[in-house]
Amino acid sequence: MNLVLLAPVAAFAAILVSIYLYFYVNSKSAGTPKMQEISGAIRDGARTFLKREYSTLAVFVIIMTLILTVALGVYADMGWEIGPAYIFGSVCSAIAGFLGMEVALKANARTANAAREGLNKAFPIAFRGGAVMGFSVVGLALLGVSIVYFLTGRPELVLGFSFGASALALFAKAGGGIYTKTADISADLVGKIEMDLPEDDPRNPAVIADNVGDNVGDVAGMGADLFDSYVASIVAVMILGASATLQQAASSSFGNSSAYMDLPLIFAGLGIIASIVGVFLVRVGKDGNPGKALNWGTYSTCTILIALTFLITYYLDYPLGIWGALAVGLIAGVLIGITTDYYTSIDRTPVKKTAESSQTGAAINIITGFSYGLMSMFPPLLGIAIASATAYFICELTVGVGFGVYGVGMSAVGMLSIVGMIVAGDAYGPIVDNSKGIAEQAGMEEEVIEIADRLDAAGNTAKAITKGFAIGAAGLTVLALLAAYQEIVQTRTGELISFDLMNPFVLTGALIGIAMPALFSAMVMLGVGKNAFRMIEEIRRQFREIPGLKEGKEGVKPDYAKCVDIAAKGALKELLPPSILTIGATLIVGFVGQLVASQIGHPYEFGGIQALGGYLGGSIFSGLIFALFMSNSGGLWDNAKKYIEAGQLGGKGSDAHKAAVIGDTVGDPFKDTAGPSLNTMITVMSLVASIFAPLLIAFALLLI
Amino acid sequence: MNLVLLAPVAAFAAILVSIYLYFYVNSKSAGTPKMQEISGAIRDGARTFLKREYSTLAVFVIIMTLILTVALGVYADMGWEIGPAYIFGSVCSAIAGFLGMEVALKANARTANAAREGLNKAFPIAFRGGAVMGFSVVGLALLGVSIVYFLTGRPELVLGFSFGASALALFAKAGGGIYTKTADISADLVGKIEMDLPEDDPRNPAVIADNVGDNVGDVAGMGADLFDSYVASIVAVMILGASATLQQAASSSFGNSSAYMDLPLIFAGLGIIASIVGVFLVRVGKDGNPGKALNWGTYSTCTILIALTFLITYYLDYPLGIWGALAVGLIAGVLIGITTDYYTSIDRTPVKKTAESSQTGAAINIITGFSYGLMSMFPPLLGIAIASATAYFICELTVGVGFGVYGVGMSAVGMLSIVGMIVAGDAYGPIVDNSKGIAEQAGMEEEVIEIADRLDAAGNTAKAITKGFAIGAAGLTVLALLAAYQEIVQTRTGELISFDLMNPFVLTGALIGIAMPALFSAMVMLGVGKNAFRMIEEIRRQFREIPGLKEGKEGVKPDYAKCVDIAAKGALKELLPPSILTIGATLIVGFVGQLVASQIGHPYEFGGIQALGGYLGGSIFSGLIFALFMSNSGGLWDNAKKYIEAGQLGGKGSDAHKAAVIGDTVGDPFKDTAGPSLNTMITVMSLVASIFAPLLIAFALLLI
Repeated sequence: MNLVLLAPVAAFAAILVSIYLYFYVNSKSAGTPKMQEISGAIRDGARTFLKREYSTLAVFVIIMTLILTVALGVYADMGWEIGPAYIFGSVCSAIAGFLGMEVALKANARTANAAREGLNKAFPIAFRGGAVMGFSVVGLALLGVSIVYFLTGRPELVLGFSFGASALALFAKAGGGIYTKTADISADLVGKIEMDLPEDDPRNPAVIADNVGDNVGDVAGMGADLFDSYVASIVAVMILGASATLQQAASSSFGNSSAYMDLPLIFAGLGIIASIVGVFLVRVGKDGNPGKALNWGTYSTCTILIALTFLITYYLDYPLGIWGALAVGLIAGVLIGITTDYYTSIDRTPVKKTAESSQTGAAINIITGFSYGLMSMFPPLLGIAIASATAYFICELTVGVGFGVYGVGMSAVGMLSIVGMIVAGDAYGPIVDNSKGIAEQAGMEEEVIEIADRLDAAGNTAKAITKGFAIGAAGLTVLALLAAYQEIVQTRTGELISFDLMNPFVLTGALIGIAMPALFSAMVMLGVGKNAFRMIEEIRRQFREIPGLKEGKEGVKPDYAKCVDIAAKGALKELLPPSILTIGATLIVGFVGQLVASQIGHPYEFGGIQALGGYLGGSIFSGLIFALFMSNSGGLWDNAKKYIEAGQLGGKGSDAHKAAVIGDTVGDPFKDTAGPSLNTMITVMSLVASIFAPLLIAFALLLI
Repeated sequence: MNLVLLAPVAAFAAILVSIYLYFYVNSKSAGTPKMQEISGAIRDGARTFLKREYSTLAVFVIIMTLILTVALGVYADMGWEIGPAYIFGSVCSAIAGFLGMEVALKANARTANAAREGLNKAFPIAFRGGAVMGFSVVGLALLGVSIVYFLTGRPELVLGFSFGASALALFAKAGGGIYTKTADISADLVGKIEMDLPEDDPRNPAVIADNVGDNVGDVAGMGADLFDSYVASIVAVMILGASATLQQAASSSFGNSSAYMDLPLIFAGLGIIASIVGVFLVRVGKDGNPGKALNWGTYSTCTILIALTFLITYYLDYPLGIWGALAVGLIAGVLIGITTDYYTSIDRTPVKKTAESSQTGAAINIITGFSYGLMSMFPPLLGIAIASATAYFICELTVGVGFGVYGVGMSAVGMLSIVGMIVAGDAYGPIVDNSKGIAEQAGMEEEVIEIADRLDAAGNTAKAITKGFAIGAAGLTVLALLAAYQEIVQTRTGELISFDLMNPFVLTGALIGIAMPALFSAMVMLGVGKNAFRMIEEIRRQFREIPGLKEGKEGVKPDYAKCVDIAAKGALKELLPPSILTIGATLIVGFVGQLVASQIGHPYEFGGIQALGGYLGGSIFSGLIFALFMSNSGGLWDNAKKYIEAGQLGGKGSDAHKAAVIGDTVGDPFKDTAGPSLNTMITVMSLVASIFAPLLIAFALLLI
């Protein structure tokens, strides 16, 4: 039996589990009429946004498909299949995002309703709702990859699938991120600060938009993001496995040259099995600790996966070094998560010191949080550095020369193969956040809101570990993609093409590359600022013009839909420029670089290709820096505020609290808009480079 | 006649001009007794701090000298001269900093006093005061370099001199930067915000400490910084000129193998001549525009230098491509300055938009300024990329193979050879800032303060151009130093050692390197935060406990000295850890990397050396990013506040103004502590790598 079939079988199983869990969530009571009304409003807003977003993107996808089919299919002998593979990737990613969001929109009210019967009744609804998302992501992703690979046998077409998923993820992250923070900031600034309303107060015209934002930003966006990393890590390893050296090694050991291309698929299949077991192991008692339960799920999934992959590696007679690289990745992921947790956790020094510094005003709060955010990037960067070097040398030294970069890719696959579990834990967060909001808006009892609060707090703890995974995995994945790009250009040109920092093309590319993530972040954050400006005006207008709204007069309701509409319109307008920059600048560096290189000639005839390599390296470095810094400092400010709200340093309403609220608001677009988009951005850049490499080479050869 | 003698002759001339200008400033009236009293207090505070700082550093310098003499002199055959060269560099830099500060402390009151007679009387005192600093920096630096080079003939000993100057600069920047911002932030937060006092009000206990800070941070620190870049660029080119290829080329063209080592010295000498002429061309009429006068000085110095270097290159028969590289550097410096100006100038979109965003609160002000700060790094990075590539190819293609990196270094020398002029314009800033403070504290008339204000505003405009120069030059210098490091290790090992990003050692080094500037910035900024916390408590205590202070009762004075003392103690305590990190981490990466590499063996036997190369590359990238971002966003927030204070958007006291003050305070340690220290930090790292390279190689060979 060919074990590579494990991949589609496991993917199919994931989809079945996902359907089963969907019915489980759906079978629960949707709550009181009031709850249903609120969750209905959120659902309508979210669906409207997603529908609009997808229609905007459809135009882009069609244009891109035409470009790919003509440019790559015709001019760079990739075949017409590249276009369909690209569309297929986009569609799979969009469906996964849509399904995840749909179930999250059902799970929120149901969790709030079940909270009336106790923590242990509410928790499984929220967590299993998240798991629907997790399994639809991995199921559709691995099934899609398997289909493209089995039909064509060509990893570069899988690359097309991956690019489709990535480009969609970039739009979904950027658009969703701008939407969610526009709503969040505006709701807070007018509602909490100017009008002194509590969080999630139904009088606030932005409250529904805020809840919609959690779903379109955190759920749909995050699902698309991990879909993208997951597929990219698999395809990077497949391409590295297709290298001549590894094919030869495979032929002589297995009599089958595709053995090293198949392995990431097999491991990904095992990862799904481990995640399914892990998800069903997550349980919480009546007075249990939901945060611990979530972490326990992650740890047990890791353990199961390490055991399964060891058995399969051993049974199939693959070199054990490859399994070692995978294990290194998994362990590094957990360690990175734990150190990240230190910098953002509410009971550790950085958060406490930041909270204390709020006593001397907002400026010192921001400087302190900013500084700890800068510090927090050291442990994960060191972790990625050590993990990649260890994975490299385990494979290069014990498996054979040429296996090093394959090992780095495999460590990324190791981290990402448990994505089913990771997404389940991550999507749990916005579900319980929303359910808390619904409980408050529906005027539930104190005890219910307290349970909703505990569920919410657990989401934040679990998020730290899973976020460590996501960033570590993205880092290793883009490194593997850089190696894949090199492999592609070397195979196609038949030359050794290195990315030596002292080569002026590489250096120039790197200097431009490091500016890109910064430029991208600036564009999306300015988008949030501009959008929030409009929305704040609207909220103020409603409070001014709707009589009785501020006082909460019976029957007086704000115009929620208008706010939802402003956030959506703005997000769709602001999403295109940074996304097009990401793709466009990458192509410009390659092609303009090649044009210059051809003027200079030997030994710089492939200068543009090298400039693009340097550009990727630079943008990976700077992308990792900003992603880590922004995610962590944002989380830190958020928790510093919560620390004060928990009654420390004067508690709610004190000057320290006001200062901390400003810090938290600054952190909002850091951690929920720019930071998480950067992972996707550097993945997209790396994929653009790899996918357009054949065209770039054709162009180079034309000019020589 | 050997034209290399031009270097010490011009350096000596610079020192003479500096003495002449000192007497010019000193001959002016020191003002009213009140003015003299205030400037006396500032002088005492500044001297006390510098004395303490230098005594702390003396211990470090002695320890370092011993390490260098033993480790490099004995174990790596560099000779005992490395120790004295190192001390000599430290001492020269310290003297230049001290002299510049002394004259600045005289010029401040004299400028304020002369302002009573008009702008055209006051301006030359401030500007020539700054020029004393400029010429003592270039004079001592070039004289020192010439002495070491003429006595020993060995560029690696000039490297020792350069390292001495750099290490001192790092301490001076970090210490001075922490001091100045501790005082500034504390004075503002308690004085302006809590007590509603105007800027520089004599009732504020921190007002003298704040004025002292401008001198020790901006004047002494900045002088040390440019001393360091100036020497480093010259030595980098000398080392590249010592390469076998270039020595051969020189021997065959000039019959003198040191011709390419001498050239940077000759060009630096010409730069001094051009700067002397430029400084004396700067004049301003009765109603003239001082900002324009300063820029006119910079532009004319550039033009004179381009002409002089062309003539000399032609006359001495050097290849014209080298002159081309120098010209590229100069032009790039001006262009980078102009684009930087766009992002920080008070009448351009970024500052206006940031000011407008203050209307929706401090958080949006910060997000907007942060975003424009991120954007602002793109033009200079592109400028550095294009300048370095152009300089490289001009030399590599028209002069000969192997001349490319020499050209990159020469473009840095081009930018830095006008440092005399740059420092004059830069030191002008804190002098007029102080003189404004003195005029206000001494209770001068409205018209005088208005003139002081105009002089101050001109300082900010000129600063943008000179800052562009400083950052661009630092970027090109560190790239040249990276090339010098490679040259040293290749010459000593006799092997081709590349820094290929796909080499796991290079990559690991780079991933660690990119975290370093962030870690360093975090440490110095947390230092400011901690220190400010203590000082704020003290200021509040004084207002509470000294009766009549707040009301400004006749004869009641705050305890200025206590605040000066707190700022100084804190700065000296916080300065060591980040500085030691900079040097220590660099050595750890090299030696630990080499230890690992020796375990792995061929083809990684020089892995540690390569890891160090990657580490330098990574820290250069990330250092440039943060230096640019922090300097620019800090300047932008500052001007957004000033824009509102000029009466826009509600003017002083409005909510928008309060929000903008918070943004400005956040930007303070960005632009005056962390940002400007980063240039020095990456220079120090590069020098540490180059200077310890022989020891690292000895270690590597021992392990093989």
